[in-house]
Amino acid sequence: MSLAIVIHGGAGVVARNEGDVEHAAERDALRRVRDDAWRQLTLGASALDVVEAAVVSLEECPLFNAGKGAVLGSNGKVELDAAIMDGATRDAGAVAVVDRIRNPIRAARKLLGSPHVLLAAHGAHELAKAHGLELVEPAWFVTDKRLEQWRTRFADGGGTVGAVATDIHGHVAAATSTGGMLGKAPGRIGDSPVVGAGTYAWDRTCAVSGTGDGEFFLRLCLAHRVSSAVEHGAPLGEAVASAIAELEALGGEGGIIATDPSGAVAHAFHASGMYRAWRDAHGDEGVAVF
Amino acid sequence: MSLAIVIHGGAGVVARNEGDVEHAAERDALRRVRDDAWRQLTLGASALDVVEAAVVSLEECPLFNAGKGAVLGSNGKVELDAAIMDGATRDAGAVAVVDRIRNPIRAARKLLGSPHVLLAAHGAHELAKAHGLELVEPAWFVTDKRLEQWRTRFADGGGTVGAVATDIHGHVAAATSTGGMLGKAPGRIGDSPVVGAGTYAWDRTCAVSGTGDGEFFLRLCLAHRVSSAVEHGAPLGEAVASAIAELEALGGEGGIIATDPSGAVAHAFHASGMYRAWRDAHGDEGVAVF
Repeated sequence: MSLAIVIHGGAGVVARNEGDVEHAAERDALRRVRDDAWRQLTLGASALDVVEAAVVSLEECPLFNAGKGAVLGSNGKVELDAAIMDGATRDAGAVAVVDRIRNPIRAARKLLGSPHVLLAAHGAHELAKAHGLELVEPAWFVTDKRLEQWRTRFADGGGTVGAVATDIHGHVAAATSTGGMLGKAPGRIGDSPVVGAGTYAWDRTCAVSGTGDGEFFLRLCLAHRVSSAVEHGAPLGEAVASAIAELEALGGEGGIIATDPSGAVAHAFHASGMYRAWRDAHGDEGVAVF
Repeated sequence: MSLAIVIHGGAGVVARNEGDVEHAAERDALRRVRDDAWRQLTLGASALDVVEAAVVSLEECPLFNAGKGAVLGSNGKVELDAAIMDGATRDAGAVAVVDRIRNPIRAARKLLGSPHVLLAAHGAHELAKAHGLELVEPAWFVTDKRLEQWRTRFADGGGTVGAVATDIHGHVAAATSTGGMLGKAPGRIGDSPVVGAGTYAWDRTCAVSGTGDGEFFLRLCLAHRVSSAVEHGAPLGEAVASAIAELEALGGEGGIIATDPSGAVAHAFHASGMYRAWRDAHGDEGVAVF
């Protein structure tokens, strides 16, 4: 058994002195989601199902910048992005600039096997309706904390969420969901829903989910760079570390989580912190912020 | 001098028996755009300026599926995507799902140096307005030929357009613009505006523009795969050929054009044809469809 799971709740500004209470809540949420994911993996669930379920749970948790609790754009509104990718087939689905789909990652999943990979705005909403996914009013996503951050234009705490997993068959999958960056321009699409930038999965290499300065991930094609490095022989941890070094060299901040078909896990970041939790088949596990 | 230019007007269904007249028009357009680009390069223009100008000309030409003459989606409407990338800085700009910006590639260019890489729909329109770009009614893009193709759901002839160039300083740049696929779902974003999928440029490797089955380019991260192969030592032509082989292996069709800082050019496709024209510093030049 080579099972592995890593999840993240964002990399970015994480104050060390804001008190332990909030970090405790975020760590508890990550631990619960990770343990659920692990249980599913041990029961034989596919990596694809496990990363989707983990990201749904993190979208539902208002502590993170995805689904309920997303940050607000310059116009004070929420616009959500999400992507999921199946390493076995390299099939992928993603939605961008949505504000009515309760769980954007579920809409992304519905695109697997369809003629399209990436649907934005009205197109994603039509897809969600066609599949009977739960729709909510845009105000449903907004929390008092994010309103306050929008007023002060300073965001800290939980960020973009993501999950990568390796299942009992050695298949890998990745999923990422986000509200994007605080104060972003309307219509802005970041790296999370872009295959190869914030999300990538291929059974020949690894599964990757990123978080951080999305525009840098886009320009570097960072998730795919990790996959390419592994494809050309780099160990997983080295490939992730090297991608983070490139991100830093270009002036960006962020973090990356990854698993590979052998069950190796990796997580690294260049930022003040990254909310993350992991577990592998050798008993290595943890929940960490710094 | 290591100048190089390659442009394309789409790969896909190109009938050999539809008569020479239409192909002659497309070849003439490509030759004119290539010659203009070459002249600018010899005058010292930057690769970035040259690929933007070439794509503007191809957007204006109703023979190709970009700007005026774009194909129609399932709802009978035009939605345009475009991206441009500067190999010197790896800065990139892209717009998606726009229907009022006369030259989407100009809007994409305005994002270079801005906080965002990719803007969709309303966001891209606001950007275009803020920069005083020419806006038109959506009906302006629609030609009789594309209306007929929409009715019959069969598109042939000119497709997505793109340009890659190497300038006198050895900088490379890439630009791509498209109306997407005939009958696409509203809100569908293909590979053209996605950095790493349909467009990529990096002075350390090469500049790449793709055309074809966008969803396959997205899943394979195909433009960045060419760049990665070159980064790991493959000659440009081999990197492009290998990417096309991967596209074919996954069941997709399409083509790729590329230049590198040394002035090498490459163009290859798996489809019935690809409209293309090229010229390099060694005098190698051509205009071809098959």
